[in-house]
Amino acid sequence: MNVVEKIIAGDVRTAARLIREIEDEHPETRKTLQKLHTHTGNAYVIGITGAPGVGKSTLVDQMIYHLRKQNKSVGVIAVDPTSPFSGGALLGDRVRMQRHSLDKDVFIRSLAARCHAGGLSASTQSVIDVLDAMGKDIIIVETVGVGQGEIDVVKSAHTTIVVVIPGMGDEIQAFKAGILEVGQIFLINKSDRAGAVQTLENLKAMIALNQHKLSAEGWVPPVLMAEAVHNKGVAELLQTAEDHRRHVDALSLECKYRHNREKAAAQFSAMIKDRLVEDVLKQLSATRRYQQAVDAIAQGAKDPYSACDDLLSAILRISLEKEE
Amino acid sequence: MNVVEKIIAGDVRTAARLIREIEDEHPETRKTLQKLHTHTGNAYVIGITGAPGVGKSTLVDQMIYHLRKQNKSVGVIAVDPTSPFSGGALLGDRVRMQRHSLDKDVFIRSLAARCHAGGLSASTQSVIDVLDAMGKDIIIVETVGVGQGEIDVVKSAHTTIVVVIPGMGDEIQAFKAGILEVGQIFLINKSDRAGAVQTLENLKAMIALNQHKLSAEGWVPPVLMAEAVHNKGVAELLQTAEDHRRHVDALSLECKYRHNREKAAAQFSAMIKDRLVEDVLKQLSATRRYQQAVDAIAQGAKDPYSACDDLLSAILRISLEKEE
Repeated sequence: MNVVEKIIAGDVRTAARLIREIEDEHPETRKTLQKLHTHTGNAYVIGITGAPGVGKSTLVDQMIYHLRKQNKSVGVIAVDPTSPFSGGALLGDRVRMQRHSLDKDVFIRSLAARCHAGGLSASTQSVIDVLDAMGKDIIIVETVGVGQGEIDVVKSAHTTIVVVIPGMGDEIQAFKAGILEVGQIFLINKSDRAGAVQTLENLKAMIALNQHKLSAEGWVPPVLMAEAVHNKGVAELLQTAEDHRRHVDALSLECKYRHNREKAAAQFSAMIKDRLVEDVLKQLSATRRYQQAVDAIAQGAKDPYSACDDLLSAILRISLEKEE
Repeated sequence: MNVVEKIIAGDVRTAARLIREIEDEHPETRKTLQKLHTHTGNAYVIGITGAPGVGKSTLVDQMIYHLRKQNKSVGVIAVDPTSPFSGGALLGDRVRMQRHSLDKDVFIRSLAARCHAGGLSASTQSVIDVLDAMGKDIIIVETVGVGQGEIDVVKSAHTTIVVVIPGMGDEIQAFKAGILEVGQIFLINKSDRAGAVQTLENLKAMIALNQHKLSAEGWVPPVLMAEAVHNKGVAELLQTAEDHRRHVDALSLECKYRHNREKAAAQFSAMIKDRLVEDVLKQLSATRRYQQAVDAIAQGAKDPYSACDDLLSAILRISLEKEE
């Protein structure tokens, strides 16, 4: 069996190796991913995002438990922000999901977050494709909500759950960063803590205020309460995700196409960004013109701003000419 | 007076406005920055990087105190990782530097970290240019060491100090992420804590192991101890930074040119990355070819990997043809 066949057959070791290669940005993985792509589109992708400490991993662990009871196979992609200092700090979180580690229908992988345009989003999408081709029914993408890169990640999910805890003042911050537009469900975890009701009211008010932006598809994001650590509210959360899925399924064809096109556009833009930075810059920097620009800057003969303008306008001109 | 003249005259309000515009990525700022660039090159840039909680802000505060005693004017750029959730959490750090807020020769600005290729690095470099043109003698760039984007930031500093604390296991993590190659000085802050000597030994061993990579310019990064909160070791740290400056100054012309060219290359590459993502993608996504690719993906007629390959190879082909 070749790699594609092995992955479709659910071979965990082959999948793990391919995921490592995606992380390492092996250019050869693209050929495999191209072939895998025709075998994708069956999994339902749930995004989970929220600040460190809101209990995402515990929540995901409980979600796995419920989904397994429904006999659904589950893939989990935990996106870690890579830090040269505290890179290992999040390993503890993974440990919390260990009770599922012997279940062959649960596949959990951490993905290091590289801080470059579209890179994270593009590689997460590729890993989603791998898990999808493996036949996972539900794929959960867990990401700590730090920065635009990570917000982009959850844009490719079918349903995104934004997790907050009472009294974090998250509501306002979330609103500012466009989290509101990204979440289809808001969950107040650790809802036994003081301030839960206040947080609930705030979130609901904010959603109501922004309804004109959100209701293009007629879905008003509900705000739920949970205590994931006591397994409270988790079944309701999954039911609400299922409601959202049905809601989208029931949209008119035109509306559904617009929905799909938006997802495709986000995914394509992330991929182009990633490749622009990786491939185009690499090839560009090998050109004589580029090296001459660096010389001129180092010698003080040219300022970097003008050098950058000159180089890019040349590229843009020829790209746009070609179009006409 | 125009904007450039005002900034050269040290006008704080004009500088603050320009920095805000750099953050907001106003394309018009480039014209101003081009003109400012001829007035730069006098400031000495010190990078400070380290995990949250190692005491960077306290250290910077003490460094300002010592530099002011030497009658040097100081600019500080604190690069914050933007989080939609905890965006405001770092404000407390800025407060620690408040004792210098009435000193007109100290200029402190926070810069939000956008997670996109080169974006952070490019905008930090532009803000360095502004502070440089204002006539600051020393510019301190403080960044929490999370991700490649932030490592790139300190690459443009003349001297970079990597701050760790005892017993964090940072040493190994740091090594992995290439922090070792970026630091010219390592500082163990909070050195009264248990494990300081162990951390010192580990760092020294790691530096010795990698000396072949580091000693191109004959500088072996020293490892210092400090208790910034008690103002211990801060004067020594500044003296060591000065030693590094003299070391680079004393390099042969050829060696110094190579050093400058490396910095120019890093800066140029960050700027190109930033603009590739911002401008090129924007113009690209407006083309018919791009929109047709999105349609094909949304309809399932084409996989995104092939679509991306097709679009980029077209751009690359014409860019490279032009070269010959």
